[in-house]
Amino acid sequence: MGIVGAGVVKILAGNSSTLAKKAGKKLQIVAVSARDKKKKRGIKLAGIKWHDSALALAKDPEIDVIVELIGGDKGVAYELCKTALKSGKHVVTANKALIAARGMELAELAEKNKVALLFEASVAGGIPIIKALKEGLAANNIKRVTGILNGTSNFILSAMADEGRPFDKVLREAQKLGYAESDPSFDINGKDAAHKLAILTALAHGCRINSEAIYTEGINNVSPDDIAYANELGFTIRPLSISRMSANGIEQRVHPSLVRKTEPIASVNGVLGAVLVECDQLGPAFFTGAGAGQGPTASAVVADIIDIASERYSLPFGVAVSKLAEAKFSGIENHKGSYYVRLNVKDKPGVLASITAAFSKQDIGVEAVLQKANTRNKTAQIALTTHHTNEKSIRKVLKNISEMEYVVETPHMIRIEEF
Amino acid sequence: MGIVGAGVVKILAGNSSTLAKKAGKKLQIVAVSARDKKKKRGIKLAGIKWHDSALALAKDPEIDVIVELIGGDKGVAYELCKTALKSGKHVVTANKALIAARGMELAELAEKNKVALLFEASVAGGIPIIKALKEGLAANNIKRVTGILNGTSNFILSAMADEGRPFDKVLREAQKLGYAESDPSFDINGKDAAHKLAILTALAHGCRINSEAIYTEGINNVSPDDIAYANELGFTIRPLSISRMSANGIEQRVHPSLVRKTEPIASVNGVLGAVLVECDQLGPAFFTGAGAGQGPTASAVVADIIDIASERYSLPFGVAVSKLAEAKFSGIENHKGSYYVRLNVKDKPGVLASITAAFSKQDIGVEAVLQKANTRNKTAQIALTTHHTNEKSIRKVLKNISEMEYVVETPHMIRIEEF
Repeated sequence: MGIVGAGVVKILAGNSSTLAKKAGKKLQIVAVSARDKKKKRGIKLAGIKWHDSALALAKDPEIDVIVELIGGDKGVAYELCKTALKSGKHVVTANKALIAARGMELAELAEKNKVALLFEASVAGGIPIIKALKEGLAANNIKRVTGILNGTSNFILSAMADEGRPFDKVLREAQKLGYAESDPSFDINGKDAAHKLAILTALAHGCRINSEAIYTEGINNVSPDDIAYANELGFTIRPLSISRMSANGIEQRVHPSLVRKTEPIASVNGVLGAVLVECDQLGPAFFTGAGAGQGPTASAVVADIIDIASERYSLPFGVAVSKLAEAKFSGIENHKGSYYVRLNVKDKPGVLASITAAFSKQDIGVEAVLQKANTRNKTAQIALTTHHTNEKSIRKVLKNISEMEYVVETPHMIRIEEF
Repeated sequence: MGIVGAGVVKILAGNSSTLAKKAGKKLQIVAVSARDKKKKRGIKLAGIKWHDSALALAKDPEIDVIVELIGGDKGVAYELCKTALKSGKHVVTANKALIAARGMELAELAEKNKVALLFEASVAGGIPIIKALKEGLAANNIKRVTGILNGTSNFILSAMADEGRPFDKVLREAQKLGYAESDPSFDINGKDAAHKLAILTALAHGCRINSEAIYTEGINNVSPDDIAYANELGFTIRPLSISRMSANGIEQRVHPSLVRKTEPIASVNGVLGAVLVECDQLGPAFFTGAGAGQGPTASAVVADIIDIASERYSLPFGVAVSKLAEAKFSGIENHKGSYYVRLNVKDKPGVLASITAAFSKQDIGVEAVLQKANTRNKTAQIALTTHHTNEKSIRKVLKNISEMEYVVETPHMIRIEEF
């Protein structure tokens, strides 16, 4: 009964006759539970049972569907879902941490007890991307899923680009506007997006969830300079979450990425969410919408409830857990792609030549270079993009360059995502 | 067994083990039918029964699901679907003309016989927009659906904008590239898009299909000048299909529209399709992808087959036909919005003043004006955009202006769609 829970109650109450037509039956809120009974929630709870313990909901024989909106991958949220499924109750949840950590176990419980476990709201808010991957795009083999899965990160990078302001200032503004938590670390360090990506990977590639094998890099190292250079070079920087079939296995990566401005995902600004799914039959399918917030998240929760009431729900991961592949995952060290590099160097003749020589020594072609002198301290900043290469080579060249005597700062690298 | 039919066979055959996992059972092609048995289709049909008459499929007791890819709103396509539903067989179709014309009747037959009638492929190719409207966004009241539903029209307007070439030349190129039929009239005059819009309206607003109450205007009157002026004024011209809840009823409109370049739908180029759904809870949800072609359309057909095999299909229109509203529809004469107007006038002092006076006489505010002289024949072209007004007032002002002696050509108007 937090913000999303109140949103679900609002939709179910405010829209009950339309929803009854769609569900083929009346949807009734039997009981609710929350930590604080007295808290103002802006909704009427008259006529609805109150349970002091959320776990009591799972035992209430009048209840068919449990909606878990507590959060966290253990404790009450986990116990509630587990007990509900074991008691033959359907479960709807928005809890990405729980599904990323214990999705396989809970899905097996749901299958065994022939009940639904639906979690559309756990990824990309109200965008029906989980249904699309499980059902609408089911005829396709999926090559890559690319998402903007964390609204806080995307808001920060968008605002930095619009206003040329540094990360810290924009973060404080995001906190003031309510777009970032008072402790925003999970949003900014990529952990929140990684939970969501783990879920999308399993759905897109038909494999078991692996939330360990995710390379995760936050957006806090992106500087206003990077954004300005990227812009000059024809790119926008976006906080991408990528799951890609590669020759070495499935890559799962969460990191800021340069994206060409002409790509649709480059135009996804602010707190919007987006998912691009590259399909073998359909080609690219692109979904955008509100990735978070009360209405959007509640919209996804209620859609799941209607699916259950209409008895048209699919298996939690589209196929039986026993038939999900034990996929091979590929680490970031095997990544292949192009890169953006920014260097601070002493402004002396021959420096640019030595740097480009360092790249060609590793067989890396340089695609574009910008150099800007800072006359005040006789340094220069060099920003460049490379042709297609690989993670090992780029790391080698950055190491070599950082050891050169005229390099005054650790070189900074951001991956380019090409479509 | 045309292009899409062959695509369906390719997916079912090429991907059978993955699809069996998703469907929970093996999907088997029992029989096929087409006009010409000998035609080369690039697929193996060995071991598959051949029926010379498509109607024989509906009587074949081995068949559970009929996939109708014939087209047309009467004749064999209609008879096949009707007979199949009456015989208790599920039907999957890509036939927008049939669903727009006889969707209510066929849906009632499906409901009565407790079988599925699914038509995801009939609108926007492989984009799962019908599933989204029926299921993923089911918690929302929908205010407006805006689509780019005809790839040929969008290709033509995009190519005209990129290359500054006139409609006729670009159309011939589109025909050469296979993006336009040899008789492209239904694509260009908006009829094809109108069929699709009629289906989306019923799904979005929970009402009976009304394919008569659609204002339809083709793209053939859009000139390179319009595209250039729109561009200068900050807009792109797109072939939009719009279904909107208004105070006077549901508006259904298919016409070229000016869209601000910053809107996501303005960036949908070439043969891509797109649908923007404005929801009360979720806000705007935007879907893009291939709106036509063998793979994309077959992708949607196979997704419907998997839904049937998994027994998770919903009612044809999301709610029972008996519960669909008999909605009021609003004609174009009630439309409210902003407008773009282009005039050819004699280049004389006072002309612009008289024209702007004509607008203010109808209480229409002019937002922006461009005027370009043509010294060769002493005329000038004036392009302007208005503030929010209504269809009656703009038609009145255009009539008044066309009667002015210095106006050398019938004034040209294009509606602006605001989001």
